[in-house]
Amino acid sequence: VTAPKEKARPTLRIGDLAEQSGVPIATIKYYIREGLLPPPPMKTGRTMAYYDEDYLEQLRVVRRLREEHFLPVRVIKTILEERGAAPLDAHARALVLSAGPGFLARVQAERAPAPPAADPNLTPDERTLLEDLGLLGGDADEDAELLGAMAAMEQAGLGRDRFPLEGLGHYVELLGELARRELRHFAQHAEGLDSATVETLAARAFALTAPLVAIIHKKLVLRTLRAELARKETP
Amino acid sequence: VTAPKEKARPTLRIGDLAEQSGVPIATIKYYIREGLLPPPPMKTGRTMAYYDEDYLEQLRVVRRLREEHFLPVRVIKTILEERGAAPLDAHARALVLSAGPGFLARVQAERAPAPPAADPNLTPDERTLLEDLGLLGGDADEDAELLGAMAAMEQAGLGRDRFPLEGLGHYVELLGELARRELRHFAQHAEGLDSATVETLAARAFALTAPLVAIIHKKLVLRTLRAELARKETP
Repeated sequence: VTAPKEKARPTLRIGDLAEQSGVPIATIKYYIREGLLPPPPMKTGRTMAYYDEDYLEQLRVVRRLREEHFLPVRVIKTILEERGAAPLDAHARALVLSAGPGFLARVQAERAPAPPAADPNLTPDERTLLEDLGLLGGDADEDAELLGAMAAMEQAGLGRDRFPLEGLGHYVELLGELARRELRHFAQHAEGLDSATVETLAARAFALTAPLVAIIHKKLVLRTLRAELARKETP
Repeated sequence: VTAPKEKARPTLRIGDLAEQSGVPIATIKYYIREGLLPPPPMKTGRTMAYYDEDYLEQLRVVRRLREEHFLPVRVIKTILEERGAAPLDAHARALVLSAGPGFLARVQAERAPAPPAADPNLTPDERTLLEDLGLLGGDADEDAELLGAMAAMEQAGLGRDRFPLEGLGHYVELLGELARRELRHFAQHAEGLDSATVETLAARAFALTAPLVAIIHKKLVLRTLRAELARKETP
């Protein structure tokens, strides 16, 4: 959960937040207790606190994810945390700053041309959800790739009636955590290499861990299913 | 969260649960929504449901953990899941038992022939680690696929000096959790379909979520890196 920026002086009371967002005061307090929202940026007494416009915007995102898309608190929390998480120590950070831009440029240059834009017929609400999840609205090629995969699912009879988009919240939560750990892990073990070598290795790792993730994911789906079936025999 | 045993006929209404446990109805509903308690074992209408004594006992456990030990919902959930790790409710379980074996047979039949066995030069210790992680030692084709991916990494200069196998523990932890959620999510949304249709849809979902996982994973790696680089500019 990112702390609100400090530009605007906080002038909103919790009652104003409730009125402008349509979220009851008790629910706002619950969100703060559960860590979905940070504590008030400005407290002037035991029961007096002021909030700013950024806070209101965050509250609206939480509300959408929770009340329109019914995502569980835990999932929303992780998604929000990801927006502003600080996963790296100083050494890893230095490595990322020196080799990161070159790596990104290289990945973008090496990437296959974007597939023709497929259309999974998203409603405006669904598009907003994907943007809130951070899956749409950034790089055009990456957007096209995701929309293509979703259109393929729809064509195979796996439409959003059977597979609602909220399910993607789980992917963002768990694969996002995996991505952070990979970055940390890579940085730890690349210590002592020069920046050009790091760039090359990172680009190769990026290409080669994709199949590894796919293989392990498939394997674990099958393993989970087998475990569930085996349970039958040992009641 | 384990499903209550079915010995005793469910005769308790949610109001009875609330009265006997001292937990308000709204809170019980919240626990069910958050997955701390399974859905009612017996539903007789849209708003009529019955619970049994086991359910009451589980509710008392949740209450103790939450109100006496102040554990967060997320932690309680993990504790309960680890106890009996029965991730599926009765309906989902029935679905898995009826369509699961056919699905497995189908996935195995449709699968590409195993690649020629590549050798990532595993030491006996490393092999044992992969077996402990549940990644090796089961199906021969799946083993060959994983070993092939690892050999490719080694050939690209990403050997185990730079990328120790322990790192795969993260994949098993997070992708394993993802697999369990996918199974649950699929079962929930496949309600009301006959077993042959479930089998077909499951096989398609299995094939189509693999690219989806790969796309989202790649996207989140890039997003994590971009977020880290952007941090530089806004200290």
